[in-house]
Amino acid sequence: MTNVYVIGIGLIGGSMALDIKTLHPEAKIYGIDTNESHLAEAIALGVVDAGATFEDLVDADFVIVSVPVDVALLVLPKVLDVIGDNSIVFEVGSTKMPICEAVANHPKRRNFIATHPIAGTEFSGPSAAIKGLFQGKTNIICEVEKTTFKLQEKALDLFKAMGMRIRYMDPKSHDKHIAYVSHLSHISAFMLGKTVINKEKDEQDIFDMAGSGFESTVRLAKSSPAMWTPIFKQNRKQVVKTLDEYISNLSKFKELLEKEDYDAIYNEMQSVNKIKEILNGMTAPEPSKGK
Amino acid sequence: MTNVYVIGIGLIGGSMALDIKTLHPEAKIYGIDTNESHLAEAIALGVVDAGATFEDLVDADFVIVSVPVDVALLVLPKVLDVIGDNSIVFEVGSTKMPICEAVANHPKRRNFIATHPIAGTEFSGPSAAIKGLFQGKTNIICEVEKTTFKLQEKALDLFKAMGMRIRYMDPKSHDKHIAYVSHLSHISAFMLGKTVINKEKDEQDIFDMAGSGFESTVRLAKSSPAMWTPIFKQNRKQVVKTLDEYISNLSKFKELLEKEDYDAIYNEMQSVNKIKEILNGMTAPEPSKGK
Repeated sequence: MTNVYVIGIGLIGGSMALDIKTLHPEAKIYGIDTNESHLAEAIALGVVDAGATFEDLVDADFVIVSVPVDVALLVLPKVLDVIGDNSIVFEVGSTKMPICEAVANHPKRRNFIATHPIAGTEFSGPSAAIKGLFQGKTNIICEVEKTTFKLQEKALDLFKAMGMRIRYMDPKSHDKHIAYVSHLSHISAFMLGKTVINKEKDEQDIFDMAGSGFESTVRLAKSSPAMWTPIFKQNRKQVVKTLDEYISNLSKFKELLEKEDYDAIYNEMQSVNKIKEILNGMTAPEPSKGK
Repeated sequence: MTNVYVIGIGLIGGSMALDIKTLHPEAKIYGIDTNESHLAEAIALGVVDAGATFEDLVDADFVIVSVPVDVALLVLPKVLDVIGDNSIVFEVGSTKMPICEAVANHPKRRNFIATHPIAGTEFSGPSAAIKGLFQGKTNIICEVEKTTFKLQEKALDLFKAMGMRIRYMDPKSHDKHIAYVSHLSHISAFMLGKTVINKEKDEQDIFDMAGSGFESTVRLAKSSPAMWTPIFKQNRKQVVKTLDEYISNLSKFKELLEKEDYDAIYNEMQSVNKIKEILNGMTAPEPSKGK
């Protein structure tokens, strides 16, 4: 019998629970959530088998910490305090430096593996959990050398069975790059939503004019503030840097428009068009690059 | 026999041609395109039946002008010069003031109906044309009173048969509102793509970390510069205004982050979360509001 504990049963933790149940039907999956209605919902939906407490973690094989990143800083050391020698614990949040620092000197550091499965959507809570979420997605693993080899293997076997590609990275590089490809996109979408909603106060009909383009660009503005506020807090310096660059690029585009330099505007857009090939490369399967 | 002429056979014109062929199998659909390979491709794909010239327009029932908005300013008066009394001409671009002004005093103004079907995507060219593109989409019609009643009816019957909801609006309001819900989204996506690509020059691995959220937010940066440069030119004043507001909102968010005012950051995001309901309302069918 494999005992799995999911602490915080939302999109990521819940989807992992569903995949583990499919891969290991004999596994017993326990949920721990401070939000009791989330726990009840997760049990009713069959995402987890039963509730549990921190004391129960002593017999855990896997512990998945999938809570907002500020909560993870408090929860993870407590989890490591309780688990046995053969438990592997992973945390799945969108920042990696603060969490790695928080457990750097913990006596059970080698039972922990720092991960970031790039599989989030704008949805949250147990009802957002879906089977197969991680198929073809990238899982970034930080400081892999700090985890006991046997437990690394156990975690990696699970991630690969879920269909994930593995990328290794140091926590600082992770936090720097993820600011560009994830955190900035969220702020861009939130502020686009704000700009249009502020206008809409006076003009009720404006959203009748919105098409799929607006919907796509603003989609991330549906994301949970409780999840995202601590991410921006923990990655503040990098996020401010990406925002500076984004605002500067927007201001330059605006100046070109004010100067009516349409050749330059055309060139700006054309040079960004190569994002097509980049995005295609991103979504295409890359078996030869998989580790 | 119904004779339909499509001038500029891309996503919008091509998709209209496909829908008309489905609705009226007896119709003869002609394509006019300065790009000869586009015309050949459109014929090969069955989007149009044959090529034609401006002189042929004399026997047109419908003429669809679906070219970049700067080209439309030149093409539309020439089309009106040639057509017969029973032709209805519509133009489908993303700006409406300049086109309405360009034909305001044309003797055949009453044969023209100014429309904006909100159905664009990031794709372009004849291969982007698809059947059923307009199902459930909004078509904004400007200055409807300036079109002969009989020809209005003919156009509206066609738009409704394609599945479109009709909204009436004056050209100035159209151009003002569309700057928020469409033009700004495109610049936001282009500049997000630019910010990340500039970074990627040094860091090849960054796109391995990008997930579906980035892909969604940056999607419109795949759009055609040849189509979008003249849109930004024609709607310059409104676009600059929306950009000012967007940049100001981003700068305020950055200041909150620099001041570490996380309560305010949480509230900013929470207040934009209502975009969920707005977007749901946008995509839900609204038969009672249809005209």
